[in-house]
Amino acid sequence: MPFVSIRLAGTATKDQKSAIVADVTQSLVTRLGKNPAAVQIVIEEVSPENYGAGGQLLADRDAPKPQEDAHAESSQ
Amino acid sequence: MPFVSIRLAGTATKDQKSAIVADVTQSLVTRLGKNPAAVQIVIEEVSPENYGAGGQLLADRDAPKPQEDAHAESSQ
Amino acid sequence: MPFVSIRLAGTATKDQKSAIVADVTQSLVTRLGKNPAAVQIVIEEVSPENYGAGGQLLADRDAPKPQEDAHAESSQ
Amino acid sequence: MPFVSIRLAGTATKDQKSAIVADVTQSLVTRLGKNPAAVQIVIEEVSPENYGAGGQLLADRDAPKPQEDAHAESSQ
Amino acid sequence: MPFVSIRLAGTATKDQKSAIVADVTQSLVTRLGKNPAAVQIVIEEVSPENYGAGGQLLADRDAPKPQEDAHAESSQ
Amino acid sequence: MPFVSIRLAGTATKDQKSAIVADVTQSLVTRLGKNPAAVQIVIEEVSPENYGAGGQLLADRDAPKPQEDAHAESSQ
Repeated sequence: MPFVSIRLAGTATKDQKSAIVADVTQSLVTRLGKNPAAVQIVIEEVSPENYGAGGQLLADRDAPKPQEDAHAESSQ
Repeated sequence: MPFVSIRLAGTATKDQKSAIVADVTQSLVTRLGKNPAAVQIVIEEVSPENYGAGGQLLADRDAPKPQEDAHAESSQ
Repeated sequence: MPFVSIRLAGTATKDQKSAIVADVTQSLVTRLGKNPAAVQIVIEEVSPENYGAGGQLLADRDAPKPQEDAHAESSQ
Repeated sequence: MPFVSIRLAGTATKDQKSAIVADVTQSLVTRLGKNPAAVQIVIEEVSPENYGAGGQLLADRDAPKPQEDAHAESSQ
Repeated sequence: MPFVSIRLAGTATKDQKSAIVADVTQSLVTRLGKNPAAVQIVIEEVSPENYGAGGQLLADRDAPKPQEDAHAESSQ
Repeated sequence: MPFVSIRLAGTATKDQKSAIVADVTQSLVTRLGKNPAAVQIVIEEVSPENYGAGGQLLADRDAPKPQEDAHAESSQ
């Protein structure tokens, strides 16, 4: 206790995940006086094909524009 | 806000996931007047070896019957 | 299967929750051919004091401005 | 988009929750370069009657000892 | 580690929750050799107005039939 | 109803997962009289690089000591 679940869109490096675990644990120790050994944290790296925002999958929202559209726009 | 987590037994295609994200976002916009940009949706595709129902793993429940049993039954 | 968890900032009426459950179930039936009886949906209504976005609790972000500041600003 | 769920055994004050939201958001901004506006955090305060550890409910584990036992022990 | 979340439709008594925590912890100790002290379990009691199945809120599905319909049926 | 999510640090064999699903379902049937068919259980096997406890990733906490340190210590 406490248990923290962090869902990220995309991936993070091991060092980034390690730093986040240290930061979040420190916050719960400092703010609530929790025993760090009791703080459990799970980081879930979610593929952009499985994460939606604004009604779209991030994979679609962030997909590079097809060349044709890009060319048509730039020559207008 | 809101945050939606959808756990599926098995997999779904990108188009299916895209359609579900659009449907669920639309429902929260229509029913609650939420801002679509604030609606986050995560779809977790869970292997049948990790999903249980009725006291069994789906992988066991849905496993094809061993040939022998099938033959014995059909010749009764 | 599937299991859906929906976390809302604030509350919703029973009718709104009923409509959302119907919409989301319909989407999973239509898009994935799921059996509606197997679709479980939990709606969690989270107090603005327990929901954070942009580094703030929603309760703070949406708190009405103290009168004094409001008066000072309007007389500038 | 990250979404963070924090389950606490017992309650926290509004100021404590506000500080935790700020800390955790800052960590995700600093470590992953996330946009703070996209970081959603839900804090669930779980009653000790609903949180188990070591095979016991925290409500049982942390319950004050009945007087009799306490007296018997102290007079040994 | 592990962390278990159990969502129940409706409520359970303290004794029932205590027994479930003991059972589930024992299973993870017996099957996986986990250290019971590291097993965290959260039980969430969800109101029937917030739990949907088969496209309906349980509160609607399980609502007693209105008297009139009941009378009309019984006199056919 | 109910829905159970079990997060494990590391992996489990299919037989172990199958036994856990049977145990947990049995507990909810015995203690709460639930219909086993309605009990859904998801087991998430989390990599030690994604599971933190005591402020560290389990991958770091459980990493074998570098040879050098081990040698220096043993020759003291």
